Amino acid sequence: MNIKPVAGIEPPYYAVVFTSVHRDDPDGYAETAVRMEELVGDVPGFLGYESARTPGGLGITVGYFRDTDSIAAWRRNLEHQEAQRRGRAEWYESYSVHVAKVERSYGFELG
Amino acid sequence: MNIKPVAGIEPPYYAVVFTSVHRDDPDGYAETAVRMEELVGDVPGFLGYESARTPGGLGITVGYFRDTDSIAAWRRNLEHQEAQRRGRAEWYESYSVHVAKVERSYGFELG
Repeated sequence: MNIKPVAGIEPPYYAVVFTSVHRDDPDGYAETAVRMEELVGDVPGFLGYESARTPGGLGITVGYFRDTDSIAAWRRNLEHQEAQRRGRAEWYESYSVHVAKVERSYGFELG
Repeated sequence: MNIKPVAGIEPPYYAVVFTSVHRDDPDGYAETAVRMEELVGDVPGFLGYESARTPGGLGITVGYFRDTDSIAAWRRNLEHQEAQRRGRAEWYESYSVHVAKVERSYGFELG
């Protein structure tokens, strides 16, 4: 998991915001999350991601992609589709996805 | 803090993704965060927010706004500006902000 904000990508690019609430004790989730991190890294136009989860609360993962083609390629990945299916069946209480075109971005780093 | 994903907003709308790494023991941060939650709720066009923080790791807050005017109104808020100044001086190791126009969104809720 990244512990540093993704920075320095030149707009336009896309952010896919995925927020979720887990069910209790989601068996097999952690292994699949690690596998998805590996897989998405191979998608052309994938730029990075950030993830945070409050214990017992909300999880937010933001994936950054160059364009809608790269998002579509990730959506078509069969192993990813299977993980999504399993997520709905076994892991998630609820989730939301927001696909958004980044118009500007900036950051701060302690000097 | 919200523990349920924001859902059911009709695009287009804006997502402001704020990811941050704290310094150790950020004094005064929690009180200010609560105050900012109150304040942003008064901004016309503010639609909601989601927040997660991995203990010792990354924090991600996503604010949803109807349009760029409502984001600009929040940026002009003087108390918010002071909190940002204090954040750079005292609280954050680093942060990134991505301002993005949501083109589509969808969700899942356990039936």
